[in-house]
Amino acid sequence: MPSLNTWISSAHDSDFSIYNLPFGIFSTSDRSPRAGIAIGDEIIDLYRLAGLGLLEDLSVHASIVGQDHLNDFIRLGKKSTTAVRKRVQDWLCRERSPLKRHPELRVKQADARMHLPVRIGDYTDFYSSLEHATNVGKMFRDPENALLPNWKHLPVAYHGRASSIITSGTPVRRPKGQIMPGGADRPVYQPSEKLDFELEMGFIIGRDSELGESVPVKKAADYIFGLVLFNDWSARDIQKWEYVPLGPFLGKNFASSISPWIVTLEALETFKVKGPEPEVPLLPYLKTTGKKNYDIELSVSIHPQGGKEEIICRSNARHLYWNMAQQLAHHTVNGCNVQVGDLMASGTISGPEPDAYGSMLELSWGGSQMIKLSEDQNRTFLEDHDTVILRGRAEKEGIRIGFGEVRTEILPAV
Amino acid sequence: MPSLNTWISSAHDSDFSIYNLPFGIFSTSDRSPRAGIAIGDEIIDLYRLAGLGLLEDLSVHASIVGQDHLNDFIRLGKKSTTAVRKRVQDWLCRERSPLKRHPELRVKQADARMHLPVRIGDYTDFYSSLEHATNVGKMFRDPENALLPNWKHLPVAYHGRASSIITSGTPVRRPKGQIMPGGADRPVYQPSEKLDFELEMGFIIGRDSELGESVPVKKAADYIFGLVLFNDWSARDIQKWEYVPLGPFLGKNFASSISPWIVTLEALETFKVKGPEPEVPLLPYLKTTGKKNYDIELSVSIHPQGGKEEIICRSNARHLYWNMAQQLAHHTVNGCNVQVGDLMASGTISGPEPDAYGSMLELSWGGSQMIKLSEDQNRTFLEDHDTVILRGRAEKEGIRIGFGEVRTEILPAV
Repeated sequence: MPSLNTWISSAHDSDFSIYNLPFGIFSTSDRSPRAGIAIGDEIIDLYRLAGLGLLEDLSVHASIVGQDHLNDFIRLGKKSTTAVRKRVQDWLCRERSPLKRHPELRVKQADARMHLPVRIGDYTDFYSSLEHATNVGKMFRDPENALLPNWKHLPVAYHGRASSIITSGTPVRRPKGQIMPGGADRPVYQPSEKLDFELEMGFIIGRDSELGESVPVKKAADYIFGLVLFNDWSARDIQKWEYVPLGPFLGKNFASSISPWIVTLEALETFKVKGPEPEVPLLPYLKTTGKKNYDIELSVSIHPQGGKEEIICRSNARHLYWNMAQQLAHHTVNGCNVQVGDLMASGTISGPEPDAYGSMLELSWGGSQMIKLSEDQNRTFLEDHDTVILRGRAEKEGIRIGFGEVRTEILPAV
Repeated sequence: MPSLNTWISSAHDSDFSIYNLPFGIFSTSDRSPRAGIAIGDEIIDLYRLAGLGLLEDLSVHASIVGQDHLNDFIRLGKKSTTAVRKRVQDWLCRERSPLKRHPELRVKQADARMHLPVRIGDYTDFYSSLEHATNVGKMFRDPENALLPNWKHLPVAYHGRASSIITSGTPVRRPKGQIMPGGADRPVYQPSEKLDFELEMGFIIGRDSELGESVPVKKAADYIFGLVLFNDWSARDIQKWEYVPLGPFLGKNFASSISPWIVTLEALETFKVKGPEPEVPLLPYLKTTGKKNYDIELSVSIHPQGGKEEIICRSNARHLYWNMAQQLAHHTVNGCNVQVGDLMASGTISGPEPDAYGSMLELSWGGSQMIKLSEDQNRTFLEDHDTVILRGRAEKEGIRIGFGEVRTEILPAV
């Protein structure tokens, strides 16, 4: 990648470097939600840019980037969205550019509120980390046969709830529900006592497929617009009682949190790496070659009320056993259609080391070990007013592409 | 209910009687999709009705009923939607009415194409028939302990795929996928050999709830706009291999079919009946009193290509162990929000008698018994070019409220 230099100084040591330029939806006190591109600690206002006619030759109109979601913009296709990103990149590097001439095109992130970047039609959660699936299998099933027979043959997944997906900054209320206490003969109704995060990444679908059509692994990248951080909140005690035989439901659907900026697939190109080798022969529709994983460092912190933020997990997206091309090919092999704005999440991304486990369930080994936060703060699961922060960043040869953060405070049950 | 008489003669012996008046979305060769009300073999064109200013005093404008989905109309609230239905009902009974004066307000159903009535945000499938859950448990788990411990304490459910929901008349292509053949040591990729229907009903959410808010059983009816027939297509062989531990995925999400007319809750008022008594004490948030089930006769027919239609199942919605109020209260007890247009399906509605089983899995008892269609036609599961027809009807004291049908042809895999 050629070296780029922008005159926005806050971009030099930022997740939102000149190489990144992710898309999001923001609002300000003087205007409703609209599309923007993050750079350093600022946002380029695409609605105003289009309003000045500066995207007209790319057929990107203010009516598209003035909406409160990116779906219609993404639906224009990568040719258009890439052209917008390249133009902004170019103008951010040139000393004489409309972005300098028109200061109203730039908004301080501190003055903006971020919104969900897309209207999510369907949300699917995979279960693609070998380490996570193995840890859970060891705890809840059989330590000697932790993985179920299908796990290495297909990327296991289930459908989640789209309506309760929120973005960074929106608090989550501790859910109530049915729980079967150990040794009891009937369930009780109470707030969850085992509220947990799950460190995941998600990808946003960038192109519709038709019902009855399958997306082959080789074409998967055409259907992926970009990536976000994803926190799949889980109430382990509710989940445990409800989940047989049809899978997770109320233990998950009270909320899921995504990062507000969608980092495009093209921005991440430099960070492609080979994933783990399949441990069993795969059916042809799931075979991939070359670099299909992404080297993205991930972390989770807990900031207790009145306390100090502590990192409790460091993982990496490169650990994922199943890659996005395999996930999408599998999801559509039966003809299931995908639509622009759909979200596909990875499942908890745990690494091989105990401090790389992506959930408190694993970090506390089912609640049996304390997770040390600071001198006087320990956790097995989350407490009220804890703030959980997910971060993700790829860095190589002076190029940094970050995801910002997903920050969520836990509110007490009512 | 007072006796009503309409001058539309085709309504007298019809699912779409003067007492019914369900809402749907239809198009004609001369105009794009818009809202309508079914009466007999005709449709009242609500877009043209609003265009003449005849709904203006109800604040129902052509821009709302001229859309290709009912969501924004439903969002006006029951006060508005009920008023529209009552006005149409009144005018269909009066000899001097705008519906007679303006023949362009009435469209023959034969000249119209039906569309999905709502844009479905999220779709949830329950598992609320005791008979169905027991049958499946006997076949796949333990005949002596067919039900899992949670089943009688909560209405088990899982999230399904909204993007692949289609309406009557849209064919379904036989899905392909991973299947583990009996005795094999690795899966194969092939078309499903155990393609099945599931006879269900679904309800459409009529009012948004807030994230963090719970809908109590007593208020559930305020959030339910109406009901549809629902066919939850299932590929049993794909499902069997994939579904542990996170539930059904590709075995279901290739398609689900709903009937195009939404029968309002108020139209069904006469057919309320008491449901089965709970067999274990329920937590207070799930306790209901009075008539919460609906006496709706259901049937499934198979029409083989070149053959004759045969009814293979007769069931009734009154059999459901968990009612809609319980389903909705449970779904939101953890604060999960629901939105106008969401679909909640009942799960397969099986009755106690073997000819009331609502799936071929049960009718053929896992493929071990032939389902006889006619002299030379037998089935265990569906064959290519079979057409499956679901029908539903409530009838009492001369009042008939029907759902029409969901008719779907199975196309061969490609």
